[in-house]
Amino acid sequence: MVNSKVIVVEKIMDANDQVANQIHDQLTANKVFSINLMASPGAGKTTFILRTIRELSAKLRMAVIEGDTAPVTIDADKITAAGVLAVQINTGGECHLDAMMMKRGLEQLPLDSLDLVIVENVGNLICPAAFNLGTHANILIASVPEGDDKPYKYPNIYRGLDVLIISKTDLLPYIQFNMDYFKQGVGLLNPGLSTFALSAQSGAGFAAWINWLEKQVDQLKSNG
Amino acid sequence: MVNSKVIVVEKIMDANDQVANQIHDQLTANKVFSINLMASPGAGKTTFILRTIRELSAKLRMAVIEGDTAPVTIDADKITAAGVLAVQINTGGECHLDAMMMKRGLEQLPLDSLDLVIVENVGNLICPAAFNLGTHANILIASVPEGDDKPYKYPNIYRGLDVLIISKTDLLPYIQFNMDYFKQGVGLLNPGLSTFALSAQSGAGFAAWINWLEKQVDQLKSNG
Repeated sequence: MVNSKVIVVEKIMDANDQVANQIHDQLTANKVFSINLMASPGAGKTTFILRTIRELSAKLRMAVIEGDTAPVTIDADKITAAGVLAVQINTGGECHLDAMMMKRGLEQLPLDSLDLVIVENVGNLICPAAFNLGTHANILIASVPEGDDKPYKYPNIYRGLDVLIISKTDLLPYIQFNMDYFKQGVGLLNPGLSTFALSAQSGAGFAAWINWLEKQVDQLKSNG
Repeated sequence: MVNSKVIVVEKIMDANDQVANQIHDQLTANKVFSINLMASPGAGKTTFILRTIRELSAKLRMAVIEGDTAPVTIDADKITAAGVLAVQINTGGECHLDAMMMKRGLEQLPLDSLDLVIVENVGNLICPAAFNLGTHANILIASVPEGDDKPYKYPNIYRGLDVLIISKTDLLPYIQFNMDYFKQGVGLLNPGLSTFALSAQSGAGFAAWINWLEKQVDQLKSNG
């Protein structure tokens, strides 16, 4: 039984990577930059997305793909209320988005009139790390109330990152969080990782993140 | 391919439930009460366990089974330092403990000289909900910084609970958390669920939880 399980899983991963490659090519050809936002439940992904939308709405044409395990539209409704197109993907209980779901989401978006697609993955530090979605950047939002030991306990997700967002820094005065210990753990897994510490609530530190994102969108536009 | 995946998954779940039933009988026969603690990463499971151990160490003989996705002993070391036997189970990247892993953990414990086994599941709100471990109570720790919308977004885990712990209440003054909205969501999924709001850091509200736990241990002892 174990062997048949392994074979099935390998087939699934191969199929996923194939579709992810197609997605990456399609997004790049359309000059649409895309990010895959991963995090624990409650790390503040939606609040982070809403502030990013607000700060860039005058400059960029954006859409959001919302991954949820349950058929609820809480997050998608908030995005829509902010004036941005949102596509809801229900994973049917699965703990992550995969490239096939991402493809279904993209089919509902007008790629030729977008600059940026933000994917909000399912709240989870384990499963999403294994599934490439074909986006241009894998980003983890680690909120400080989760504690400073997370890189040590969930190394896989940190290894595959392009960007790390340390969020809810406004709560630092009220909790025990050793930033040096946290960053040391990250450094062991992913040396030189681009990192932004910020509060989507207060806005502190947010400008550097927006700056980075705008630069990526511009770079993709000016290529070729 | 989808069909073969479904069949494999069904076989795994059946095998899991069979082992879980054996575990439940074994623990009950030994009059060892056991709890399965589930939570998001960083909800404060280990801090919660450490305080529970501290408050009950004079009365109960305890052991902890630590589920981790990575081969790190951060949590197990803290438990051992608190003078309690800890068994580390590495899930090998899997996002949850299952009954077979639980069985391996129990084999390393002297059940005839224990009153309480605390299982710290992998930090995750999706996968652990599907795997019965044979414990007497399924408990979720929901920390307030995760936000008040979690019952709506992760309904499956709330449906299967025997107890809900609302943790990190000391942070309530610094965050937006609508307790009524949260509890309304819980009530829709699991009416009448035993709920304890507390801070393992300050100790506020902890006595009611300890009271409940002691009562369960006593009840199991006095049965039969």
